Amino acid sequence: MKKTLAALVLVSLSGAVMAQALTPEEMIRTRKSGYRFMDWNMSKIKANLDGNFNKDQVAAAANLVAATANSGMGALFGPGTDREVGNEKTRVKPEFFQQPEKVRELAIPFIRETNELAKVAAAGDAEAIRTQFAKTADTCTACHRQFRNR
Amino acid sequence: MKKTLAALVLVSLSGAVMAQALTPEEMIRTRKSGYRFMDWNMSKIKANLDGNFNKDQVAAAANLVAATANSGMGALFGPGTDREVGNEKTRVKPEFFQQPEKVRELAIPFIRETNELAKVAAAGDAEAIRTQFAKTADTCTACHRQFRNR
Repeated sequence: MKKTLAALVLVSLSGAVMAQALTPEEMIRTRKSGYRFMDWNMSKIKANLDGNFNKDQVAAAANLVAATANSGMGALFGPGTDREVGNEKTRVKPEFFQQPEKVRELAIPFIRETNELAKVAAAGDAEAIRTQFAKTADTCTACHRQFRNR
Repeated sequence: MKKTLAALVLVSLSGAVMAQALTPEEMIRTRKSGYRFMDWNMSKIKANLDGNFNKDQVAAAANLVAATANSGMGALFGPGTDREVGNEKTRVKPEFFQQPEKVRELAIPFIRETNELAKVAAAGDAEAIRTQFAKTADTCTACHRQFRNR
């Protein structure tokens, strides 16, 4: 499991290769898409925890969240994506590009907790999911607070 | 495995509940985000098959594709999302909303083949992945041809 997580982190934080095919505008658009779709899935989990709990829906949403975290989004923060490009605005702060070690420090728990969320969600215990959902959301907030403009 | 797929199809094709919280404009934006991010991950798999093959990157991308297919995107095609709304254009054809049985016929193989792609990708054999990637892409194309404007 540790080896798997290490591999995931490596894939997620590296992988600048793939981004070469995308323009800065496309990178911004693509990463915003990933965050938006992940957010929709986080919202579904929350709605399930606050209302009618559907185990299958929660597990599917948690898988999407983990898969997004594991997808190597770091490659979408390439050169020239630190400001508005073409039609794509970005809320990322310039510090994000100047502090890769700090980004990594925030990305590792994000990847770890989303993967744990997928695991806990597959087991289907609502209270365990609630706890792990909160831990996961905290890792989102930690990065937003540091590196995202309001 | 069959039971799991059946559950996934059910979650993916139903689930109008969650969409109630979103406006038609948000539904269109969210589904376009999901397709865009999935497309990025399909492109990564293709680039790996055409160039340097990185097993971990392919497996991660395939997981994202399957998780997107399993996420219940059907809920994002709610009432009022059959045309441009606010700032969100959509390429979906009106027939999509008039032929739910045909949509289901196209969605089932899409979900099945993406999940198979994730499974094959986890095993890591490039030629098997190439074959399954093509089968998966065919299910995308089948729906685009029928229900998406150029």
